[in-house]
Amino acid sequence: MTAFDIPQIIWPHSDIVSDLAEIRKHAPLTHVLTNIVVTNWTANVLLAIGASPAMVIAEEEVSDFAAIASGVLINVGTINSFDAKAMKAAAISAQKKGTPWVLDPVAVGALRYRTEIAKDLLRYKPTVIRGNASEILALAGAVGGGKGVDSTASSSDALPLGKELATGTGAVVAISGEVDYITDGKKTIAVPGGHILMTKVTGVGCSLGAMIAAILGVQKDTLRAAVSASAIFAIAGSEAAKKSSGTGSFAVAFLDELSSLGNRPSEDQKISRQ
Amino acid sequence: MTAFDIPQIIWPHSDIVSDLAEIRKHAPLTHVLTNIVVTNWTANVLLAIGASPAMVIAEEEVSDFAAIASGVLINVGTINSFDAKAMKAAAISAQKKGTPWVLDPVAVGALRYRTEIAKDLLRYKPTVIRGNASEILALAGAVGGGKGVDSTASSSDALPLGKELATGTGAVVAISGEVDYITDGKKTIAVPGGHILMTKVTGVGCSLGAMIAAILGVQKDTLRAAVSASAIFAIAGSEAAKKSSGTGSFAVAFLDELSSLGNRPSEDQKISRQ
Amino acid sequence: MTAFDIPQIIWPHSDIVSDLAEIRKHAPLTHVLTNIVVTNWTANVLLAIGASPAMVIAEEEVSDFAAIASGVLINVGTINSFDAKAMKAAAISAQKKGTPWVLDPVAVGALRYRTEIAKDLLRYKPTVIRGNASEILALAGAVGGGKGVDSTASSSDALPLGKELATGTGAVVAISGEVDYITDGKKTIAVPGGHILMTKVTGVGCSLGAMIAAILGVQKDTLRAAVSASAIFAIAGSEAAKKSSGTGSFAVAFLDELSSLGNRPSEDQKISRQ
Repeated sequence: MTAFDIPQIIWPHSDIVSDLAEIRKHAPLTHVLTNIVVTNWTANVLLAIGASPAMVIAEEEVSDFAAIASGVLINVGTINSFDAKAMKAAAISAQKKGTPWVLDPVAVGALRYRTEIAKDLLRYKPTVIRGNASEILALAGAVGGGKGVDSTASSSDALPLGKELATGTGAVVAISGEVDYITDGKKTIAVPGGHILMTKVTGVGCSLGAMIAAILGVQKDTLRAAVSASAIFAIAGSEAAKKSSGTGSFAVAFLDELSSLGNRPSEDQKISRQ
Repeated sequence: MTAFDIPQIIWPHSDIVSDLAEIRKHAPLTHVLTNIVVTNWTANVLLAIGASPAMVIAEEEVSDFAAIASGVLINVGTINSFDAKAMKAAAISAQKKGTPWVLDPVAVGALRYRTEIAKDLLRYKPTVIRGNASEILALAGAVGGGKGVDSTASSSDALPLGKELATGTGAVVAISGEVDYITDGKKTIAVPGGHILMTKVTGVGCSLGAMIAAILGVQKDTLRAAVSASAIFAIAGSEAAKKSSGTGSFAVAFLDELSSLGNRPSEDQKISRQ
Repeated sequence: MTAFDIPQIIWPHSDIVSDLAEIRKHAPLTHVLTNIVVTNWTANVLLAIGASPAMVIAEEEVSDFAAIASGVLINVGTINSFDAKAMKAAAISAQKKGTPWVLDPVAVGALRYRTEIAKDLLRYKPTVIRGNASEILALAGAVGGGKGVDSTASSSDALPLGKELATGTGAVVAISGEVDYITDGKKTIAVPGGHILMTKVTGVGCSLGAMIAAILGVQKDTLRAAVSASAIFAIAGSEAAKKSSGTGSFAVAFLDELSSLGNRPSEDQKISRQ
């Protein structure tokens, strides 16, 4: 099977339009444990899409909160020993209570400490693992050669090992790149689109993980939830790029697009395949 | 007394215009201990209005800093055990040195750990307590049923218990909602206005607490300071909404409005009751 | 020697244009240990200019990361005891491995705890020290009288002690203000320009320190690297101010300017001395 055989999904596919409407209707409570660089951005992305973000990070509180949330994100971007304890407690609680949760293994492979932590977190059965190619390769046991959060491999390069990671862990694996690949090990969906500016604003990838966690609160088909998140980001990114004169205005326009997407049905219908 | 009997104050009331001018003149040093989601936003809100924000959070530094600041904000949004120690030290120092301080009991009621911490902080006599209806109800001892930072009750629902909280603690209580109510237990002022988009950008409520702390540095009438902060936010929010095409551009426009409000006197005079 | 004798450098000086092109070409991996107020902003500034930021803060990871990064920033703005350990470890590793690093002594002088930490960090030989006048005066052993992060002295006032600090530590000292002065103790360069709005958005000064760390990854002449960073900020700030209607839109326009500067050569050539 080559990349050409993988089905592609883009906005406005009716499943995605429907998932977005469900988020706006139910405002799923999304528990976000993420890095200190992107907390504000991630909260604003979730609010724009209609979810209800809550960044509860104390070891004393995360178990209770992961139990009542409808989705959890664990992102190890700026992890330290205190975060590590809280993230483990949140993952354990999420698994025990059946709350779907997303693991974002930022810079795993490049740094040993977090690599061990991320591998340990796999024991608590993440629902989705989202990363760039280097991170997915590293988590799958290969040598990623990653440089911080930037990937040095392409998402299609990482797909074979991504499928193995999905099969081995039971998680859906979402590999971000020029084309996003989402796989459960058997079925794979490609989401093209987006824009290079999405890599020039910090936290876009990190907030995609949070989006997946939010959608999992309203969509039980895990593969579909991850595809919806990617497709929503791809269309918001390509539309926002048209209205931007640099990275600053792109970030603003990206939030504007997320907050108005699906609220302007006649306009959205006109969007054709890019 | 019904809600219809409560006096309403909106920008440009001469007291508020005057308070804003005082902030711009004196740039009150505002000591902010807040959650990691909204630190950047809160600093930018305070700078836009003309205050001088300082986020000093180490247990080793907060006592000294709360003593020299002209106002302190303590917001428990992402509290952990280290923050809890620092916040207690800051509150003790503020009380001892007579620095006015604001307590923002984010998500109190929804989570036991922070609820105990917030109740303990009441011992150090906050000057103002600002929260949404659920948080105020929870802190007043009722069952809030809050969901993260979102309120499930209306601000008018919380007013009776908010008055009791004011009377019991000696604090002015500011209840945020579609209409903000500010009460010292005897006198109550309503501030209408604002815009629904203020709930779709993270940290707007949190930064209102910081604004109150800033204004307390130039205005000794506590009730008036809290009313001024609410009225300034209400007008900035409703003006910003007119210039926005989504949540991203709303946040930008809100800061623009704060930074130009009162600097365009002829224009501001034209603003009529909304 | 008076201020009138100090050579001034502004964009588009060919050295600066060349340094910017090198950053865009090599995307230097910049290790940022900074305060929680400005992490997001700093990452976005570095991405806008073409660098590759990574905020790695755990004591368990910083030594390894400072060793492989091409530049490190240590900013003590919201330092606590955990940050202090990590920052020391990063500084030691940077010195040992020859990674250039920048010290930003935020609010040093105003608070004893961080003043001791910053002075201790000087033992590990920062490549550049960047601060406002009060901070540089305080670090040089004088009484700064600083108020939080705002300077109460002018950058030219601090130049004589700044030169002594440079000579005593071997670091290039960059003093930010209405005019930025960059000195190695013998040679001094002035960078005029910029705009008052740069002081009304949190983190502009802090992100200048990060910019210097990024440029040090592609430019071994330390004095020149610090001058380039200041000149790039000055032109981005003055251009952004023309397109702003307040502090919110200024921040957005500043990132837009950084991300397009040098990518529009014909336009940039037209920029004359302001």
